[in-house]
Amino acid sequence: MCATDHGGQHHPIAVAVDDTAGPSAPPSREMIEELVSANHILFDQGVVDAFGHISVRHDKRPDRFLLARNMAPSQVTAEDIVEFTLDGEAVNAGGRKVYLERFIHAEIFRRRTDVAAIVHSHSHSIVPLSVVKGMRLRAMFHMAGFVGQGAPVFEIREAGGDATDLLISNGHLGRALAENFDGHDIVLMRGHGSTVVGGSIKQAVYRAVYAELNARYQLQAMQLGEVTYLTEGESRSCVAHIEAQVHRPWEMWLEQARARRR
Amino acid sequence: MCATDHGGQHHPIAVAVDDTAGPSAPPSREMIEELVSANHILFDQGVVDAFGHISVRHDKRPDRFLLARNMAPSQVTAEDIVEFTLDGEAVNAGGRKVYLERFIHAEIFRRRTDVAAIVHSHSHSIVPLSVVKGMRLRAMFHMAGFVGQGAPVFEIREAGGDATDLLISNGHLGRALAENFDGHDIVLMRGHGSTVVGGSIKQAVYRAVYAELNARYQLQAMQLGEVTYLTEGESRSCVAHIEAQVHRPWEMWLEQARARRR
Amino acid sequence: MCATDHGGQHHPIAVAVDDTAGPSAPPSREMIEELVSANHILFDQGVVDAFGHISVRHDKRPDRFLLARNMAPSQVTAEDIVEFTLDGEAVNAGGRKVYLERFIHAEIFRRRTDVAAIVHSHSHSIVPLSVVKGMRLRAMFHMAGFVGQGAPVFEIREAGGDATDLLISNGHLGRALAENFDGHDIVLMRGHGSTVVGGSIKQAVYRAVYAELNARYQLQAMQLGEVTYLTEGESRSCVAHIEAQVHRPWEMWLEQARARRR
Amino acid sequence: MCATDHGGQHHPIAVAVDDTAGPSAPPSREMIEELVSANHILFDQGVVDAFGHISVRHDKRPDRFLLARNMAPSQVTAEDIVEFTLDGEAVNAGGRKVYLERFIHAEIFRRRTDVAAIVHSHSHSIVPLSVVKGMRLRAMFHMAGFVGQGAPVFEIREAGGDATDLLISNGHLGRALAENFDGHDIVLMRGHGSTVVGGSIKQAVYRAVYAELNARYQLQAMQLGEVTYLTEGESRSCVAHIEAQVHRPWEMWLEQARARRR
Repeated sequence: MCATDHGGQHHPIAVAVDDTAGPSAPPSREMIEELVSANHILFDQGVVDAFGHISVRHDKRPDRFLLARNMAPSQVTAEDIVEFTLDGEAVNAGGRKVYLERFIHAEIFRRRTDVAAIVHSHSHSIVPLSVVKGMRLRAMFHMAGFVGQGAPVFEIREAGGDATDLLISNGHLGRALAENFDGHDIVLMRGHGSTVVGGSIKQAVYRAVYAELNARYQLQAMQLGEVTYLTEGESRSCVAHIEAQVHRPWEMWLEQARARRR
Repeated sequence: MCATDHGGQHHPIAVAVDDTAGPSAPPSREMIEELVSANHILFDQGVVDAFGHISVRHDKRPDRFLLARNMAPSQVTAEDIVEFTLDGEAVNAGGRKVYLERFIHAEIFRRRTDVAAIVHSHSHSIVPLSVVKGMRLRAMFHMAGFVGQGAPVFEIREAGGDATDLLISNGHLGRALAENFDGHDIVLMRGHGSTVVGGSIKQAVYRAVYAELNARYQLQAMQLGEVTYLTEGESRSCVAHIEAQVHRPWEMWLEQARARRR
Repeated sequence: MCATDHGGQHHPIAVAVDDTAGPSAPPSREMIEELVSANHILFDQGVVDAFGHISVRHDKRPDRFLLARNMAPSQVTAEDIVEFTLDGEAVNAGGRKVYLERFIHAEIFRRRTDVAAIVHSHSHSIVPLSVVKGMRLRAMFHMAGFVGQGAPVFEIREAGGDATDLLISNGHLGRALAENFDGHDIVLMRGHGSTVVGGSIKQAVYRAVYAELNARYQLQAMQLGEVTYLTEGESRSCVAHIEAQVHRPWEMWLEQARARRR
Repeated sequence: MCATDHGGQHHPIAVAVDDTAGPSAPPSREMIEELVSANHILFDQGVVDAFGHISVRHDKRPDRFLLARNMAPSQVTAEDIVEFTLDGEAVNAGGRKVYLERFIHAEIFRRRTDVAAIVHSHSHSIVPLSVVKGMRLRAMFHMAGFVGQGAPVFEIREAGGDATDLLISNGHLGRALAENFDGHDIVLMRGHGSTVVGGSIKQAVYRAVYAELNARYQLQAMQLGEVTYLTEGESRSCVAHIEAQVHRPWEMWLEQARARRR
């Protein structure tokens, strides 16, 4: 097989870019440490493998965000965190390769000003759900109220044609994806995975873990019969009350991730 | 999404409460150590994650019970065990936050005087079974005779309306749940999980582990054809003979949990 | 629930028995070490949990066999191995409790003089297959030729009535089970598990591991469409050629079991 | 059961062979180390168990290839690597037993001169897909574009009759299998497993891991409804862009394999 050039999609998935924007006040050290921990937790919990990424909005400049350089999440350290503009331009990559799909983060941060953190992943039960025609991920247990009454499925063919590599490799595709987040906190991407947003790193990580579980349970339940999903009221109550507790799993997951890294 | 106030359900899932009842004679140290071990085993066996809890009836005051403060079960120590009344009031929390859902334990201990220990969890195969219309968990192998001829499914909408957060957050909901335990030792909770009772900590832990396995096997078998379940006589014989052996898995699970904590 | 007394089945699943037969020449130390390793491998490979057992025919007295005392397989040491007659009587238990289900081993060793080792287990994919009406475990890949053209399913109700605890708790039930091994090396037990035999400890362990995999694959394949099983000729060729290699997985499994016990 | 002699298939699956070809210039040390690491990664990622193997074309003699002697992949060291001709003859086995199925590698290297590395395995989701009549493994997510529009299923009965042991035990069967690789990079083998090829060791390992995931996801998705697969253009773009990144998972998998071997 050889590479072809469909729809201007001829690119590697990691790229070296010039730093084209000026530096900002440095983000808080605490936020960077939390972002590093989030990378390790997402790997340890099986949400990401060598691929997938998490970003956080800059705490001093809301028009900037932080994301690791191009690498496996399990190996990220504080030195690997790079700052980006909302156009997806690196500020301080210093020649290091960055994720091609940084446009996922850039365009969602631009469109959803309430969002503070974003996880993009290909977790095991999300991918099969994303390719079944007419299927919607839908909240079916109390830990996943944020899934709501049916997550949109982003079909890249509508914005990018039928010969892309399915990656969100430019601002055009990023904007097309971001539109799906109006009124939704998770969007599936057909044949690819999902992206989930939160008001904090901890909340985005929580949601990425439990979105996978909701998908897994839904796959099993749908094979057996008609499913009772959460009502809209139940979804909202679950988000309000249960997600106030996201620090509880976070502390446990962090301890587990550290133990397994030793 | 924002929190709403449906049916008086506006609450966090961990709460700081005043100690409103007088102290009792202290429970046996052995019982507290066993309760701590049970927390670790349930986590290590995958029955609970950062959520879920196990309680034991006070060995000197049957109108009191013991339960960890609000925290992940894997991290519980003897110092984290709190005493409660059968109204769900903390005796010696000393300002520490407690589980919102302590009413599950309080009301079952009140109604079922034969019960000595209770596990509430959201294990992986129970949740999907709980949302399929018309589905009943039913004993299908010899280790799970206690499941009997069909576990009730608690639908919180009947007692709490259609916009709750699915949690058993007060005595009213606790009593509605507890009624389902007449003649049953396990009850599923729609879109939430299950609660299982036993005559000892070891038996309740045994049942929580094997209820999950029965659900997993039932999910698989039902996809292939008609299932032969245990008869009522078989269920009873299995409980009588096999559950006399609950110390055998307990010792092994405890060794495993300790090894993985080191 | 309380114990009932159906069909003379009122018994605990571990029993203290008198040593009623005379001692034999001691079995080879090597055989005992291999039996201990087999217990650890079966646990480490997920074939047994706290329940299930493996036996070997005595190398100096074919009318005797060796089996651990009543305990979890993961914890067995050489000191825990007990000798039994083909009536299931302990020779040197010395007051230690023994497995109730030793009659599985006794009666199969009696009936199948070619058998040198037996594994009884409740592995995860075997149990669901055992309860689906009309279902037969059947060889579907080259590692499991020994499964043949359809494993019998032992229905204990035919020999023991419809209120047993499903356990093979006496010689009568043991003989009824053993009859199913004429022409078969694996027999499923409805609502309980399976028993598999081999010409050596290594072969019996190999077969217990791959029977579980065959069941798992068969469960998945049958949900998708019509399955091409091995022919009788393919099954025989696979047994002849592939099972000559049982030492290869044995060495690896043993290394894994030891590493995880450290 | 006893061995029979169908179609000249009477053989053990490991064989001692004479070294019949002359030595070559030694392959690079780096290539051998990478081949050893690949064995460990494939085991650690669950693609192979005690069975399965990976080969690489000799970097100085394209008519030779390197493959471990007959052993479990997890235990391979540099000293265990043997050189073979494209007729499957060992060059420097020195009396050590070799894999019976070396003809898989020999005949594919002969036919596909662009191939540099080959993985043969029986991974868990591939086997069930291989036995369902009319079923084709097909690319359904961006990481597995190399699967393309439907992998061939090799039916050994066509070349070897209906009583083989399903193994590729001679050049005749190897050639019959190799023909299926014209225009395909992965071929399923009915009731056996799969073989996948790549332009480098890293690429072949990557593909073996993600072929298993594609199969797993496909098994799940097909149970729920009609599936949207990748188009031919999408498959090609994914191969071109994503497989340029095979070093990213490789580094992570190698770190994991090493950590778990310690």
